[in-house]
Order: sequence, then structure tokens, then C-alpha cells
Amino acid sequence: MSTTVRQSKPLAGSDLGRQERGWNFGPGPAYLPEEVIREAQDALWHFGRTGMGIAEISHRDPLFLRLLEGLEERIRRLLQLPDSHTILFMAGGAKPHFSLIPLNLSRPHRRRAAYALTGYWSRLARAEASVLIQAEVAAEISTRGNPEHPTVIPDPAQWALPEAIDYLYYTDNESIDGIEFAAPPVREGVCLVSDMTANLFSRPIPHLDTFDLIFAGAQKNLGITGLAIVILRKEALGGSLEGWPRYLLYQEWMTHHSMVNTPPTFNLYLADLMARWMEKEGGLVALAARNRKKADLLYAAIDQSGGFYRNGISPTCRSRMNVPFRLADEDQTPRFLEMAAGAGLVQLAGHHSVGGCRASIYNAMPETGVRQLSEFMREYQRTAG
Amino acid sequence: MSTTVRQSKPLAGSDLGRQERGWNFGPGPAYLPEEVIREAQDALWHFGRTGMGIAEISHRDPLFLRLLEGLEERIRRLLQLPDSHTILFMAGGAKPHFSLIPLNLSRPHRRRAAYALTGYWSRLARAEASVLIQAEVAAEISTRGNPEHPTVIPDPAQWALPEAIDYLYYTDNESIDGIEFAAPPVREGVCLVSDMTANLFSRPIPHLDTFDLIFAGAQKNLGITGLAIVILRKEALGGSLEGWPRYLLYQEWMTHHSMVNTPPTFNLYLADLMARWMEKEGGLVALAARNRKKADLLYAAIDQSGGFYRNGISPTCRSRMNVPFRLADEDQTPRFLEMAAGAGLVQLAGHHSVGGCRASIYNAMPETGVRQLSEFMREYQRTAG
Repeated sequence: MSTTVRQSKPLAGSDLGRQERGWNFGPGPAYLPEEVIREAQDALWHFGRTGMGIAEISHRDPLFLRLLEGLEERIRRLLQLPDSHTILFMAGGAKPHFSLIPLNLSRPHRRRAAYALTGYWSRLARAEASVLIQAEVAAEISTRGNPEHPTVIPDPAQWALPEAIDYLYYTDNESIDGIEFAAPPVREGVCLVSDMTANLFSRPIPHLDTFDLIFAGAQKNLGITGLAIVILRKEALGGSLEGWPRYLLYQEWMTHHSMVNTPPTFNLYLADLMARWMEKEGGLVALAARNRKKADLLYAAIDQSGGFYRNGISPTCRSRMNVPFRLADEDQTPRFLEMAAGAGLVQLAGHHSVGGCRASIYNAMPETGVRQLSEFMREYQRTAG
Repeated sequence: MSTTVRQSKPLAGSDLGRQERGWNFGPGPAYLPEEVIREAQDALWHFGRTGMGIAEISHRDPLFLRLLEGLEERIRRLLQLPDSHTILFMAGGAKPHFSLIPLNLSRPHRRRAAYALTGYWSRLARAEASVLIQAEVAAEISTRGNPEHPTVIPDPAQWALPEAIDYLYYTDNESIDGIEFAAPPVREGVCLVSDMTANLFSRPIPHLDTFDLIFAGAQKNLGITGLAIVILRKEALGGSLEGWPRYLLYQEWMTHHSMVNTPPTFNLYLADLMARWMEKEGGLVALAARNRKKADLLYAAIDQSGGFYRNGISPTCRSRMNVPFRLADEDQTPRFLEMAAGAGLVQLAGHHSVGGCRASIYNAMPETGVRQLSEFMREYQRTAG
């Protein structure tokens, strides 16, 4: 086992007051809506009137196939996806797609793409792509900004793109660095590919028709780990891929409607519950407004702390999903995290590669949870700081 | 969506009597012990005293890392695994390993292995391997046996193995054809690789030290879909694999203790519950005895039906996990399945590639369920046949 661990102390029951569950700011696995959990609990025991639980029913059962079709339709509606694009569900997380994308989308005689490096995940994606193709740098920013010289994404219109690329890859939201694109870096005649793992479904996506591919791990806004969603322009697939294992080919997944092998049925069920929940909450426009408000609350708590809490990202590209912050006195971080957990505010540690703190506030986190965190931050500064 | 569907009619509540759950003979996704489901329901809401549910806790949280370590230790104990072998947990099912095995285990200057073709899955495994290496046939049997000329696996000592192979691949249990090896086909100086998806943990594995690799999807005896387990002799890995995506390399998974990316945490949790349950039930020796008895009951119901139900596999290699059978009058199959479902005996349809009926009776299926099926079969023959 890895020895790097995240902060999460067991809580005394009384600390959480009347509810057994704290406010969970984990980056993914992440907080789930309580009504979704309640429904999943029931379904584990019996799914409809089948005499089976949802984890025990065949992926070829008509009921399950209807669930999958419904999930796809709901996602189409939520995103307003054009017919030119298909939706694939694949087991595993987002990372395999760092390799699958260059493999499947690069043309045999070109094998060249451009990568915008705006944080941890885009750098990793480029490194994996470099095993397979020529992965050029479209833009690169320092993520070590500070309140005086904040990190900013330069205007995509100014990026120096190489000639003849198969696609322009960017990470719409860098969940570790807390950096998010305000809008897709649309460039004339360039197909976009984007890792939206941490912000898919958090707002409508403009210019959807300029995307060859969008992918995301499910464990942020679409349920739990073990599932990835791929949104693919059907005509984007490159040339022949002889000599490669068939299960690595998006074409296979398209042909077999995401059933190249037994799919992760429970994980897909959770995704469907989340999609239903998003529709019930008003869809992506409503969720986007709520997410904007939550993020504003939290950045205000940071910016109004007089430097006690610090975030080094320019407001123009601060993430609405993942809010990293540091205490000016970094030695206090473990104490801050411990006291927060004691107050029922859990999984606030920053990624192990950067340390500090991070509050992930995906769709499921209500404004109440964010307000409690903001209040705790002010109170901590007043009494303990 | 695929249009091929499995039989599973919704049940009237009253049909199931006092329990809401039927006896589920699905091949995987499969029946789970009721106490495992009850515990998973609780854990979805709160996992220990963390203030979070099991699907919401970080994979790097100390509690989750302990769970993973405990799972590995339990599997080691259950299988009596030697230290020479490591255990990997990977997202997705068993099928990707049809490609990963030849990729990772074949030596650069050899790239040749032998495959025993004893059913659907071994033939598919060879087809996938042939994309990458020279996959020779070690043995091939007809799976279209009948009670007069039953299918039999020829003595492995007589198989004509090619020279200089990297491994001998076989499918310990063919879940569609209902064929199982009585013992591993051990040959002097030959490393074994086996797909044990459908029977891993159903009995002790003799000659474990002759195996380079054993793999299995979890959805039979280790929980739910979306997870595979790989048992690997550490020294079995072949040569350089430059130019291949890193996440396809078993070495990477070994180095990172199954954390190459965010693992399917809920699926791993279910695997741990199942491993605990197996230990509580007395381990693999006790489970093997129970499984033998269950299979004997069911084959007796078939063999004593005077040809009304038929199974064409020799008793020497009949699967103890998956019992396929056909009605002599095949036109009755839909009615048989419908009436069985009405009696709370669900997911009895055969695989869509072969039709007929199939009862999968993994560890979790109690003898009571098998007895009820046997009685239903006799009653159906008496009243409806």
C-alpha cells in the first residue's frame, strides 16, 4: 500500500450532532446526495420487483438495458448533446484515456497533437500521450502563483499551435491546482479534446460541436469510482489500429454499446441516480448558478482573511469545483484539518503532491455545507490562528 | 443497446412469499449473501465513524488503505498463496486480461504460448492473444456433447505442447459451456496461466506454485462487476514493453500496489466483505464440500429426469459452478423459465450464444436454493412436461 495518506480522523458521534454524516469535501470519491444513497441502499436489496438487488441483476436483463438507455438519454438532455456525438461508458477511471485518446484519435500519418499544460493532470496526460505520439506543448503556465502574482491562463487566441495536429488537448478543470477554463479554448479548424473529470455536469458546455472527445471519471458529479464516461464525435476516430488489443479501441465500445465485456453495473446504476438527481435539481443551468454561488462564498472567505488563508489563482481561472488554499502559517495545516474534521468537515486535505487544504464542492455539496466551512474558517482564524 | 436479453420477469410480491428476494442463479452479476448486502447498505450511509459512506471516502484514507491490506491478507490466507506471488486489483472485468497476459508475460524473442480450447472463453482468449503473439492450440474439444457422447477434456498429460512456449493458458471453468478442470493441467517445466473467473475461491487450488498468473472477474465469488483480481508470480513478467501505455503493464500495478489510478473503491469494499464472509463460512475447504454437494444435487435432478433435462458434459469435467441444461423439448424453454421466475427462481436462462438453461451456483447460493430449484424441476416435469 502507498504510505501517503489523506487526513480523515474518525469522528466522535456527538461531534456530528444530529446527523451521522459530515460535510465531505473530498475530491473524488466525493460527497453523494443523501437521497441518492437512500435509494441505492434500497436497490441493493431489491431492484424493482425482480427478486434481485441492483448489483445482482444481469447486465443483459431488459430492466438493466432500459436503465442504461435512460442514463444515456438523460445525459444527452443534460448536456444538449448533438447527434454527431455518442456516449461511451467504460470501466475504470479517467487515466486510461490519457493513452486511449492518442491511440484512437491520431491519424496514422500524422500522430501529432498539442497539449495545454495548466496543471498536474494535463502534464500527466501529455506524458502518457508522448509514449504513443508527438505531443506538443500548446501553452504552459506556472501553477505556483500567489496572491501577489496569481496564476493565469493566457488567452487561448494567442497560443502558438503547431501545424497539422490531430487535436488540441486541455484539462477543463485541474482538480489539484484549482484551475478552470472560463470557456473552451476554441480555435478555428482545431478539434478539441478535454478532460472534464472534475467539472463535467457542473455547467452547460458551450461549443459542444467543436469537441472530438470529452471524458471524465464518474466519481465527482456522476456517482462513484470505477466508471468513466466518454463523449465522442463519431467521425473523430482515426485510421487502422491493427495489432492493438480490441478492448482499447473506442470503435469496439461504440459498436457494442459500451458492452465489450460485463460492465460495472452498480457503478452505472449510481450514475443513473445522479443523472436523475441533476434533472430534478433543475439541470445544468440551475446547478451552474448554485456552483458559482458556492465557489464565491468560499473564495470570499479566503480573500477576506487578510492573508491568513491564501489561494494563488487568478479569479479569471479559479476552479468552481476544487478550491485549494493554504494557511499563511503552513505548520498549522494539520491542526486546522483535525479541528475541521472534529467539526464534521471532512476530507479537506490537499492532494498529497502539493499539501495544503482543498475543498471540493461538486454538484452534490449544498450551499449549507459550504457556509459551514466558511464559518469554520473564520472561527478558526479568530480563535486558533 | 444490445437487443439480446436475458429472461427475468418482474415478480408479483406474493410469489416470493415472505422474502422479497428470489433465488438468483445468474452467472455474474450473481447472488450475494444477504448479510453482505445488509452490511453494504449500512456502509453506504456511514463507513465506521468517518462521517462518510464507503463510496465517498478517499482511496488514500488510512481506513481504506487498511481495508485493502486486509483484503489482500484474507485472500492470501484463503488461497494459501506463496510469497512468490502478488495480488493485483484492477478496475474492469476479466476480458482485458485476454490481451494483457500475452502482452506482459511473453518474452520479446519468443512471443509464443499454447491455449487449451475447452469452451467459449478460452477460444475468445486465444483470439485476443493472437493479435499480439503466436497463440498455438494445446488441445481442443467439442463442447457440443450430449448424454450419449458427452464432452470430455482429454488427459492433459497427452496434450501435444509446442516447444518453447511462454505459458500454457487454460480456462479452469468455462461458465457458458459448464466445463471445469478437475485439477490444473500441470506439465513439467510449463508455466500455467488460468482464467478462474467463474470458480476462483470455490475450492483450494493445488500446485499454486506452477502458476504464472491466475485472474478472475469479481462478479462471481468476490462481489460485483467492475473489478478483476490478478494473482501473479512476481518473476513471471517478461521483457521490455516500451511503446505501450503504462497502465497496461502489470509491473506498474505491482509497483503502485493496485493504485495506478483511483481504484473502484466500493467494488473493492464488496470484495472485502465477500472475503470476510468466505473466512467465516470456514474457508475454501468447507466451501468446496458445500459446492460439491450443491452441484451433485442439481446434476442428479438432470440425470434422473429420464432425458427430460439434458446435460452433455462428462461427469469428469462438469462444472460445479455453472450447470447448463436443456429441456428435451426445447420449445418449452421460455415457459420453463417463466414459471421458474414466477416461483422466485430467477436468472436461469442460458448464455445468449447457446440458449437453453443454466443455473450458476457460486459460493453464495445456499443448498436450500439449489434444493428448491431441483424440486421445481421435478414438479415442472410432473405437471407441465
